[in-house]
Amino acid sequence: MTRAPRSSARNGSGDAAGPSRRQLLIGGAVAGWGAALALGLDNAARPPSSSDTSSAPPAQDITGLRGSAVVPCHGEHQAGVTVAPQARSTFTSLDLRDEVDADALRRLLRILSSDIERLTSGRAALADMEPELALTPSRLTVTLGFGPRLVQRAGAPVPGWLAPLPAFGVDRLLPQWSDGDLLLEVASDDPVTVTHATRMLLKNARAFATIRWQQHGFRHAYGARPDGATMRNLFGQVDGTVNPAPSTADFDDLVWIREGWLTGGTSLVIRRIAMDLERWDLLGRDGREQAVGRRLADGAPLTGDGEHDEPDFAARDGIGFPVIPMEAHIRRARSADTGQRFYRRAYNYDDPPGPGETSRSGLIFTAFQADPLAQFAPVQRRLDELDLLNEWTTPIGSAVFAIPPGFTADGFVGQTLLGR
Amino acid sequence: MTRAPRSSARNGSGDAAGPSRRQLLIGGAVAGWGAALALGLDNAARPPSSSDTSSAPPAQDITGLRGSAVVPCHGEHQAGVTVAPQARSTFTSLDLRDEVDADALRRLLRILSSDIERLTSGRAALADMEPELALTPSRLTVTLGFGPRLVQRAGAPVPGWLAPLPAFGVDRLLPQWSDGDLLLEVASDDPVTVTHATRMLLKNARAFATIRWQQHGFRHAYGARPDGATMRNLFGQVDGTVNPAPSTADFDDLVWIREGWLTGGTSLVIRRIAMDLERWDLLGRDGREQAVGRRLADGAPLTGDGEHDEPDFAARDGIGFPVIPMEAHIRRARSADTGQRFYRRAYNYDDPPGPGETSRSGLIFTAFQADPLAQFAPVQRRLDELDLLNEWTTPIGSAVFAIPPGFTADGFVGQTLLGR
Repeated sequence: MTRAPRSSARNGSGDAAGPSRRQLLIGGAVAGWGAALALGLDNAARPPSSSDTSSAPPAQDITGLRGSAVVPCHGEHQAGVTVAPQARSTFTSLDLRDEVDADALRRLLRILSSDIERLTSGRAALADMEPELALTPSRLTVTLGFGPRLVQRAGAPVPGWLAPLPAFGVDRLLPQWSDGDLLLEVASDDPVTVTHATRMLLKNARAFATIRWQQHGFRHAYGARPDGATMRNLFGQVDGTVNPAPSTADFDDLVWIREGWLTGGTSLVIRRIAMDLERWDLLGRDGREQAVGRRLADGAPLTGDGEHDEPDFAARDGIGFPVIPMEAHIRRARSADTGQRFYRRAYNYDDPPGPGETSRSGLIFTAFQADPLAQFAPVQRRLDELDLLNEWTTPIGSAVFAIPPGFTADGFVGQTLLGR
Repeated sequence: MTRAPRSSARNGSGDAAGPSRRQLLIGGAVAGWGAALALGLDNAARPPSSSDTSSAPPAQDITGLRGSAVVPCHGEHQAGVTVAPQARSTFTSLDLRDEVDADALRRLLRILSSDIERLTSGRAALADMEPELALTPSRLTVTLGFGPRLVQRAGAPVPGWLAPLPAFGVDRLLPQWSDGDLLLEVASDDPVTVTHATRMLLKNARAFATIRWQQHGFRHAYGARPDGATMRNLFGQVDGTVNPAPSTADFDDLVWIREGWLTGGTSLVIRRIAMDLERWDLLGRDGREQAVGRRLADGAPLTGDGEHDEPDFAARDGIGFPVIPMEAHIRRARSADTGQRFYRRAYNYDDPPGPGETSRSGLIFTAFQADPLAQFAPVQRRLDELDLLNEWTTPIGSAVFAIPPGFTADGFVGQTLLGR
């Protein structure tokens, strides 16, 4: 774990040739300490503990600006699962170092939980050397997820679904986008805040774990479109219309786990899906609409007038063909079993193109559900068998994480797994 | 150049097994045409010409939402130079294909200018297959820059400054972040808009050029902080305090070129500067403030009270040492020659860390000036000789572009170079 240095040496203000680098490092460290105190980071010098959860207001009043918007981090569930999706999200998957045991995990998760409390409320993290970057939370949330090895290290039985998903024929999975022991999802409407918060968490985690992969995702900027408008992906499609909203009647049944240490938690499937924009470009709007089964303009099913109209899968056109093709994505994704549903919060990605490429874009598909094998896998199996969209999309990464329940001001994320 | 296919074949709605991929491609293309017409993209079927510059309002009224904010693209100067910096900017550098001559360049620039007119006003580009992604310009601007080879291909003399900068000792330049023939800077407050607009421009450019490099940059989200607040970089520093604003008296003299085809244009230096956040972390706040010469909290010079106070470089502390160290960045960057100034619009970058790394972050430094050799180079030479910040920063990319003047509704960007 990296903390601010605590040398007690203190050099002067430098001589004519300037302070040496070494002098700066030593002098600066101590002055930095003073500055941290002056900024009210009074807990910075103490090891993190459950008492580091003061609810002091942010150090700087930026009320009225969008940057000051705060999503409370405490509660039955982790706040990032159901908050209206923020404009930017960075997913970082970590591999635990070999020596990290249950005790070390407990320390790590206490530290991260303390950081989460501070950063999401607009306060600097412990040992935050750039506290000014913490002042614009912009609806910052941090969601932690546990891979199977982390649960093993904690000494608990690993749920059957907490493992790589069954193989699908469409998969072209790369290790650099798959799996991991510990997930940090950091999301905010402000990209600078996401970057800074991610960095603070990784600084405090790096003595315990190394980075396996990191993915940056984005949606439309906050305020650019009407509140609650369904996102569009980079194919131009309305993406996520049929999605159990946190307000719908069976959301709790679909998403929250109700037994054991995961009570109040859920599971998260992350699939990195490359989208071949070049080949998609060769397809006209009619072909695109048939591939999905929805109109591009407004997301309405081909049989309906509005985005949220129920598709009529039985409808036929004048010459007897199905209006929504048999292999359209929305027909293949649908099941008569209402339990085969999950809660999606996808983000777009757009990496710089490689040599000879014009784009390297896609979707960071995410799905929360109580049981990925019972809810996500059957849908994906149907899409794997037949889905027109498969022509233009390729899953290149896949990971499953247990999302532990929320935490309280005197607890930490993962406490139900690791105890005090 | 890629355009929507124009087959006149049209298949039915598919049979029970669904339309073949080929049928979809053909059928879809034609229906896509109909859809484009229905969306009012009435110019889509015609080759671009100077008459493609109707000022029709956006196809969808999103007035009142931030997404509908438009920056007019026409004028004496390209609009992206002086607009208040947007939250996100993507810089793409292209290499011209060998066969591209002056005539082809003229065609390319007419097409791009038409795309710019449409996209910046919230309308779909020509042959835009995702027109819905064009409806939230969010202050979109597109700035074109010309490298030396492009000017040569146009048959014009290349300005002496339009070449790689002189070598500096701190440089560790990589070809994949340096140089190029044609720059597209696409900036908007909405990252989806930046992605879509970049893609549209690249689709239309790819018959003429290949991508050399692409860099994504970001600042705080629009509205997260007070309007006009100086940005912070990922070191946490207030970055860009001393910067001739477009409203200052000598801005025009510093930035705009006043002779030849570049009259009303300028030059752009782009430096990709890696910032070693891990080593920066070892430095306390005092050391950080001495390295720069400004306070981290508010950006005030170490001798002042407010960000915009004039630094007192003569001030000494109680034991006679300079308050602002001799090697502090702001002392070394300053010249008695007021002509050695330029207009900066930096963006942060944050790439996924490589193996063993915790971060891969930095700054996309940009500077506009009438003459980079007379204005930027002397400052960089002083910083190269001595600047404490060099300990933690490394230039890894560098490019210089001529930024042609703005254009009118019946012209195109580059017309003063290429003629009609």
